[in-house]
Amino acid sequence: MKKIAIFPGSFDPFTKGHEDIVLRSLALFDEVIVAIGINSSKVRYLPVEIMVERIEYTFRDYPQVRVATFSGLTAIFAKQNDASFLVRGLRNTTDFEYENTIAQANRYVFDQLETVFLITSPALAAISSTIVRDLHRHGQNVDAFLPYHLE
Amino acid sequence: MKKIAIFPGSFDPFTKGHEDIVLRSLALFDEVIVAIGINSSKVRYLPVEIMVERIEYTFRDYPQVRVATFSGLTAIFAKQNDASFLVRGLRNTTDFEYENTIAQANRYVFDQLETVFLITSPALAAISSTIVRDLHRHGQNVDAFLPYHLE
Amino acid sequence: MKKIAIFPGSFDPFTKGHEDIVLRSLALFDEVIVAIGINSSKVRYLPVEIMVERIEYTFRDYPQVRVATFSGLTAIFAKQNDASFLVRGLRNTTDFEYENTIAQANRYVFDQLETVFLITSPALAAISSTIVRDLHRHGQNVDAFLPYHLE
Amino acid sequence: MKKIAIFPGSFDPFTKGHEDIVLRSLALFDEVIVAIGINSSKVRYLPVEIMVERIEYTFRDYPQVRVATFSGLTAIFAKQNDASFLVRGLRNTTDFEYENTIAQANRYVFDQLETVFLITSPALAAISSTIVRDLHRHGQNVDAFLPYHLE
Amino acid sequence: MKKIAIFPGSFDPFTKGHEDIVLRSLALFDEVIVAIGINSSKVRYLPVEIMVERIEYTFRDYPQVRVATFSGLTAIFAKQNDASFLVRGLRNTTDFEYENTIAQANRYVFDQLETVFLITSPALAAISSTIVRDLHRHGQNVDAFLPYHLE
Amino acid sequence: MKKIAIFPGSFDPFTKGHEDIVLRSLALFDEVIVAIGINSSKVRYLPVEIMVERIEYTFRDYPQVRVATFSGLTAIFAKQNDASFLVRGLRNTTDFEYENTIAQANRYVFDQLETVFLITSPALAAISSTIVRDLHRHGQNVDAFLPYHLE
Repeated sequence: MKKIAIFPGSFDPFTKGHEDIVLRSLALFDEVIVAIGINSSKVRYLPVEIMVERIEYTFRDYPQVRVATFSGLTAIFAKQNDASFLVRGLRNTTDFEYENTIAQANRYVFDQLETVFLITSPALAAISSTIVRDLHRHGQNVDAFLPYHLE
Repeated sequence: MKKIAIFPGSFDPFTKGHEDIVLRSLALFDEVIVAIGINSSKVRYLPVEIMVERIEYTFRDYPQVRVATFSGLTAIFAKQNDASFLVRGLRNTTDFEYENTIAQANRYVFDQLETVFLITSPALAAISSTIVRDLHRHGQNVDAFLPYHLE
Repeated sequence: MKKIAIFPGSFDPFTKGHEDIVLRSLALFDEVIVAIGINSSKVRYLPVEIMVERIEYTFRDYPQVRVATFSGLTAIFAKQNDASFLVRGLRNTTDFEYENTIAQANRYVFDQLETVFLITSPALAAISSTIVRDLHRHGQNVDAFLPYHLE
Repeated sequence: MKKIAIFPGSFDPFTKGHEDIVLRSLALFDEVIVAIGINSSKVRYLPVEIMVERIEYTFRDYPQVRVATFSGLTAIFAKQNDASFLVRGLRNTTDFEYENTIAQANRYVFDQLETVFLITSPALAAISSTIVRDLHRHGQNVDAFLPYHLE
Repeated sequence: MKKIAIFPGSFDPFTKGHEDIVLRSLALFDEVIVAIGINSSKVRYLPVEIMVERIEYTFRDYPQVRVATFSGLTAIFAKQNDASFLVRGLRNTTDFEYENTIAQANRYVFDQLETVFLITSPALAAISSTIVRDLHRHGQNVDAFLPYHLE
Repeated sequence: MKKIAIFPGSFDPFTKGHEDIVLRSLALFDEVIVAIGINSSKVRYLPVEIMVERIEYTFRDYPQVRVATFSGLTAIFAKQNDASFLVRGLRNTTDFEYENTIAQANRYVFDQLETVFLITSPALAAISSTIVRDLHRHGQNVDAFLPYHLE
């Protein structure tokens, strides 16, 4: 059976830290779906369409990586895509406690769903989407944090 | 290529929390080696031979689980067994910071080695080998914490 | 003197984790007031009236549990009810740091007020109101997380 | 029924932080037993007899505080003393994770045993027995950290 | 070369915990600029003008302390003021992880910028602007938390 | 007045993470004393003399860095050297809680002593002396973790 994993997030924007997790997860899974969660009540900084395009470009040489958008529960989206795994990056202890709670809830909705954690490479662990957004909003070049160019 | 993972530990003793991680990791890997690290400078509470026998008994219906002992570096043992993965259970934030440091060192020794983390099921997260040992030493029945019987 | 404790929260909704804390606190106190804090600037997911009714139903066999609503400072509400204790559940380290700060402030307002912490039972520690709300909003049955039925 | 609590520790030495927890716990319990755990495999810095005498002196005006020594499991000692409660001070997040594990084990041995946590007063939270010992060993006066005089 | 440090924050309001950090940082730096960050999308509880006036009053005897306001990135403001240092107070582990991320981003924008951390004095560590605001909003006197009077 | 800082540790061995902290602290202080604490009850992995020599070699181009050994309390050693500052690197939250306790004790012994924290650069934060020792003991080349060569 094909091992399919979902890598969910808001990816606003997708960073080199995220890219690191996707590339490393390819050793574990046959297919990895980078899934951009769309939450109608939250305003994004970067349009979803641009992000889909940039992530697809980032993994253009990896046919086993697919980019998708979804709304609603992550666990339901996983089930619809025959994905038995969620993959998540851990950067620090704050991440851990948050992810622990989410992982239990996802399992409740879809009990075959296993969440697999990889630790973000140390040199990339200090990158967060929030900070990249903040720098970009104030006119800084943020290419050092992203696997693609952002104007 | 066969996906082989090492689940290393001192397992003094192997608990239901450890069993939970092994069983769940079977969805990810073709073979899981439960590897008991032997450290000549530390006195064990339970003899390694007994623990090997008990863990083998625990997974008697899972031919893809193997039990082994090793001394020296975990990463070297992984390399010798063509294992590209380490699997580890996370129970809490203290575990996380310790594992983070270890994972980077293992990768330094064997750069193909990926450490994969699963979060221990909440009902089992409060079980630690240290506490099981302490209860057993004082004559308590500890069967509720172990997947096998210990006299 | 009667030992009265306040168990304050937004309880949006009240979960099995909250129920666990109330039941266990009955061994310590003569009366426990489940106090729903009303914050006019925050929109609730579930109406206060429904929650009052559900919590009262949950503890219908415990005359020493009372349900109330309050606005303003918890410490002032405690003083008005002759309650010398606040009882709080701790699930993880993030809870701890938050509660630590709140406990000192409450003591400043009402210096006789002691905050007593019980650790949430491990099997229930991964339940949070935020996640129950999120599951319910997306049409999932959440009865497994609640001590009462929610349509 | 009399509410009896055990306040267990190695108290090597008993500090102002410990005194703070005992005094505050008197509002909750009818009797508090300060219980010095004796572990034959650990060498103490201060003899148990001296510590018993100093703690008794500290609470000479509080007949509801009793000092005792015990070896073996805390939960068994609690049962033998008809104590349904353990009281523990929390200073920081490291304390929390340790205490969480211990509390579950104690409950396993004696299922009526409830562990109650009070947060150490901020001004005293940085005092630890380890540091007091280290200062005293190097000839520093440590009276500022203790509720009694130590030569 | 003059050692100039920025102490940035929203200071809504500036507390005794903040004052503690400024006073202690004077041993390290020739000039300390208390810099109130203005974020047009966040509504303040206390007007910036009043806070500037109160902080200036607090340090009226310290000519080496200056109060300023800024919008935009902290690192850019530091550069414009020839400040090679940011000074930050750490109260607990939650602070630490947040500050760690911010420090790396600031260094990215202005690579000469070093962030220096002092640990808030234990007796003041439980004071947070959020809680002072909450107490004041509900009519409590908060002078015990502030180095100046607030009506 | 000359600003002198002590950078204390067991440095068994001194790593690139330690070097990072020393180099960055030179912007703050006129003199930095790398002080190897000698604890007669702990057996070192690497002889103190070799470590003194290697650290001196590492900073051969920095006359403002001095290497020394000391036994007893860090705060006393600081006082004897007219050092008003301790400098410490923070890597993660476990470090933080430990350092917080130590900092308060040092201040108690020598109340003019300020502990200044710098956050270890992310790429170096996963290096610990314990792990370097463990790798070296098992015959691994550890030059990647050290600013000097170790046979």
